[in-house]
Amino acid sequence: MPVTIIIDAMGGDHAPKEVIRGLNTAMEENENIKAILVGDEQQINDEMKSDNFKHDIEIVHTDEWITMEDSPKIALEQKPNASIHVATKLLNEGKADAIVSGTNTGALVLAAAQNLPMIEGIERSALAAIYPTAKFIEGSHGFSLLLDVGATLKCTAKQLVHFAYMGSYYLSHVMDIQEPRVALLNNGAEETKGGAVLTRTYQYLKDDENITFVGNIEGNDINKGIVDVIITEGFVGNVIIKMMEGTAELLKDTGKYAFKKKISWKLGIAFLASGLKKLKMRTDYSEYGGVPILGFLDPVIKAHGKSNAKAFYNAYKVAVRAVESDVIKHIGASVHDFNAHHQIDDIDI
Amino acid sequence: MPVTIIIDAMGGDHAPKEVIRGLNTAMEENENIKAILVGDEQQINDEMKSDNFKHDIEIVHTDEWITMEDSPKIALEQKPNASIHVATKLLNEGKADAIVSGTNTGALVLAAAQNLPMIEGIERSALAAIYPTAKFIEGSHGFSLLLDVGATLKCTAKQLVHFAYMGSYYLSHVMDIQEPRVALLNNGAEETKGGAVLTRTYQYLKDDENITFVGNIEGNDINKGIVDVIITEGFVGNVIIKMMEGTAELLKDTGKYAFKKKISWKLGIAFLASGLKKLKMRTDYSEYGGVPILGFLDPVIKAHGKSNAKAFYNAYKVAVRAVESDVIKHIGASVHDFNAHHQIDDIDI
Repeated sequence: MPVTIIIDAMGGDHAPKEVIRGLNTAMEENENIKAILVGDEQQINDEMKSDNFKHDIEIVHTDEWITMEDSPKIALEQKPNASIHVATKLLNEGKADAIVSGTNTGALVLAAAQNLPMIEGIERSALAAIYPTAKFIEGSHGFSLLLDVGATLKCTAKQLVHFAYMGSYYLSHVMDIQEPRVALLNNGAEETKGGAVLTRTYQYLKDDENITFVGNIEGNDINKGIVDVIITEGFVGNVIIKMMEGTAELLKDTGKYAFKKKISWKLGIAFLASGLKKLKMRTDYSEYGGVPILGFLDPVIKAHGKSNAKAFYNAYKVAVRAVESDVIKHIGASVHDFNAHHQIDDIDI
Repeated sequence: MPVTIIIDAMGGDHAPKEVIRGLNTAMEENENIKAILVGDEQQINDEMKSDNFKHDIEIVHTDEWITMEDSPKIALEQKPNASIHVATKLLNEGKADAIVSGTNTGALVLAAAQNLPMIEGIERSALAAIYPTAKFIEGSHGFSLLLDVGATLKCTAKQLVHFAYMGSYYLSHVMDIQEPRVALLNNGAEETKGGAVLTRTYQYLKDDENITFVGNIEGNDINKGIVDVIITEGFVGNVIIKMMEGTAELLKDTGKYAFKKKISWKLGIAFLASGLKKLKMRTDYSEYGGVPILGFLDPVIKAHGKSNAKAFYNAYKVAVRAVESDVIKHIGASVHDFNAHHQIDDIDI
């Protein structure tokens, strides 16, 4: 069965060049992929020529797109024909099975919310982040998934349970992690920690047979990889993921500073070079191929803004796997079951 | 003017030994310090003998105390005569000017809440954390203060403004930072970010002449030291501070792993040893001398559970400075002004 991906050709720092180069490799490798590129036709054609692109694709021309500097909300209002608007609308019309975009995260979340229907029973979407974890710790797969990291700032217990399904099924169906361990981020291990919403969420997750709930997790365990999915509200997830970026940046700067400061430190860093390279590879987003924005009826894959051809290639692969594995349907079935078994007024805290 | 510190002699992994050794040095250095030690009289006397302790102090005997393994809430209920209960009650009776304890954080927060009056107009206490920041970044003092990190999980705008006063005055009066830069932790830089509570908090802080408000700060800037005080609700602060602990632990483990794994990595780490030692010193809590739990009518200083004599010595110094600088009075005056100028129903969101 062919899988049609609709692609925001203008999304990302290196678009459309790397968008197209990555697609070339993906289509080379997998004949089942069909693609619709949305963006500036001239630029797309030029890049296809220079990349010696030989596959059949459809191009939908737009003369507007969102830049990384744009304020998402204002830009989407002022650019009704932006490539990301057009692409999400075409996806909604059934022209494709999934979308991949390297645009500004806020713009993608908003465009999806405006143009795509949610999975029945789901009220809020969640942006996931996939981040590297300590591989040498027993039980670590080398990465974990954290959600939400910014789509839904405050959550009810019901919404957090839905997020747990989303994250768990995404890992089992798309990332090949068997029985992902799901944990709730909290300020203590006890069931009664974190206030009314988290206490209630804990009770729901504890009794849920669809997922492997391993309990509360605290901040110091986030990087260890001892759980696979971490559930939290968007405000907290956003702070966490930015802290990780900040720490990585700081370590890099500290290394640079040390390298310049003393000859013995320079030598030390030189000896550690192979190790640091390994660490860099593990924290390289291009390996993970984008992250999902979950809750919509079709897979929405956000590629990193700095994506190169390899990162886009991996994002397309992830989109294909999301479609072929029917992950959305599985999420929907569990959400339906959960909602049916709980009174709305009981779970809307 | 003498300053009397009441000390939980049984609080901390190395109590009462290091509690007493630190006090010996502090009283040696500063004749103005008077001390009341609360705990097991026999153990205290034994340690004083073995440490050749020559200063006059008062001992209040208790045969109960909280251990680090105790669940704070249950322990405090079951041990009404625990040293931390007795010490906070005596402080409330005016027997001392400040308290220092290395006990379990939760137990200290609870005992203070039960036995000490709050500053007039303040509804909730805040536990501060002092953490090292990148010293090579311009404007960094080498540390910042984050609050709340766990005393008050959810906060109103008014409570966050009070926390801003607490953190700012603590740094200017006790830690000698002139005009501390105060920032609000948020998921974006814009004034309108973060939902109703944070948007309102931003507006209050922006117009406040008592502090130097520099706007919102995001997760990636927490470690840079470009601001001095970061305000957030206790749930988020708790996750952040534990993440920092987790990252530090992970870096240590990664270093150990690399040291064993390859001869070139072993050499690299050996060459970096002096740099790593510097880093360790900067992250050493014994330098900061404990952190304040703010909001109460008397200074409450929490020493780290692993405190050695030096850490306790610094905690006593901090307690003395807190008393002598009248920091509590200054916090109270600003809180009074703020509350007087804002309608309660206007600020209770």
